[in-house]
Amino acid sequence: MAYSLLKGDAEYNRQLGSSISELKERIRKCSECGNFTEEDICEICTSPERDRTVLCVVEESQDVMMIESTGDFKGLFHVLHGVLSPLDGVGPTELGFDRLLRRVEELGVREIILATNPTLEGDSTALYIRHLLKDRSIRISRIATGLPVGGDMEYADKLSISRAMRGRMDFRSEEE
Amino acid sequence: MAYSLLKGDAEYNRQLGSSISELKERIRKCSECGNFTEEDICEICTSPERDRTVLCVVEESQDVMMIESTGDFKGLFHVLHGVLSPLDGVGPTELGFDRLLRRVEELGVREIILATNPTLEGDSTALYIRHLLKDRSIRISRIATGLPVGGDMEYADKLSISRAMRGRMDFRSEEE
Repeated sequence: MAYSLLKGDAEYNRQLGSSISELKERIRKCSECGNFTEEDICEICTSPERDRTVLCVVEESQDVMMIESTGDFKGLFHVLHGVLSPLDGVGPTELGFDRLLRRVEELGVREIILATNPTLEGDSTALYIRHLLKDRSIRISRIATGLPVGGDMEYADKLSISRAMRGRMDFRSEEE
Repeated sequence: MAYSLLKGDAEYNRQLGSSISELKERIRKCSECGNFTEEDICEICTSPERDRTVLCVVEESQDVMMIESTGDFKGLFHVLHGVLSPLDGVGPTELGFDRLLRRVEELGVREIILATNPTLEGDSTALYIRHLLKDRSIRISRIATGLPVGGDMEYADKLSISRAMRGRMDFRSEEE
């Protein structure tokens, strides 16, 4: 990277340098969902197009970008900026679960989609949030785990196969 | 591999050689499910422990081995030995779909799980089988596609994320 900067344009380097210097001043966390933004409240949270009753909980801002890139999801997000990890001192307070519960209340959420990663920490965090919400009459769902698209069962791991089988879905089409 | 055989035991090599020579004589396809076996009908098809009303359709014998390794599935299998691929001359006749339909009838199948790979060919094959079975009152299901266990949304492909979101499952536990 250093060599490519040396070979490149000086003006580009100046711009890149000043962007990096100012990064932390210009970008903050959205006071609603926690996603990185230049505004106080991010574009997704202010958009009138989004369904405010569906809330998708993710670990990181990158995950918002990934889900947005699919173009499928029309609800709001909630970024935890981490996962429960007691050994690293990350508990419910650090992840701001009280803020999450307040949002669920204020938005009148109908469904909460737990989209933390299917890892040990991501699963534990999802289970913990489910526990927090257990007395509310909202739909709680978890993203599907299984074979990735284009994947081959022969090269998949046991756990993914097991979850793909257990998480199988009805495959009847409406038109048939 | 050649060097490791040269360095190894002569007797082992003789045994390996004769096993490879006799492979195609000793191993045949199970006349019920199509899985590779030394008998006329394989161990899974003859086992009294298996639920004969649940049929899992897979592409290859390897997939049977993978699903068996999870220890979760207690039904029977049906091995297609391929996927629909018109350009390669593989159609419904080559995959023996009439044999599949006959088995569904004879076994009195309640649920058919389409466990072909989540690839273009595997998906098309699953759709075709669904079409063949559309007038029967059995449950047709498809294995889950989504993030693999241990996977990270940041490094997943768009399609898998999209399917993981659309294929999300209810996450309420019974005991809570």
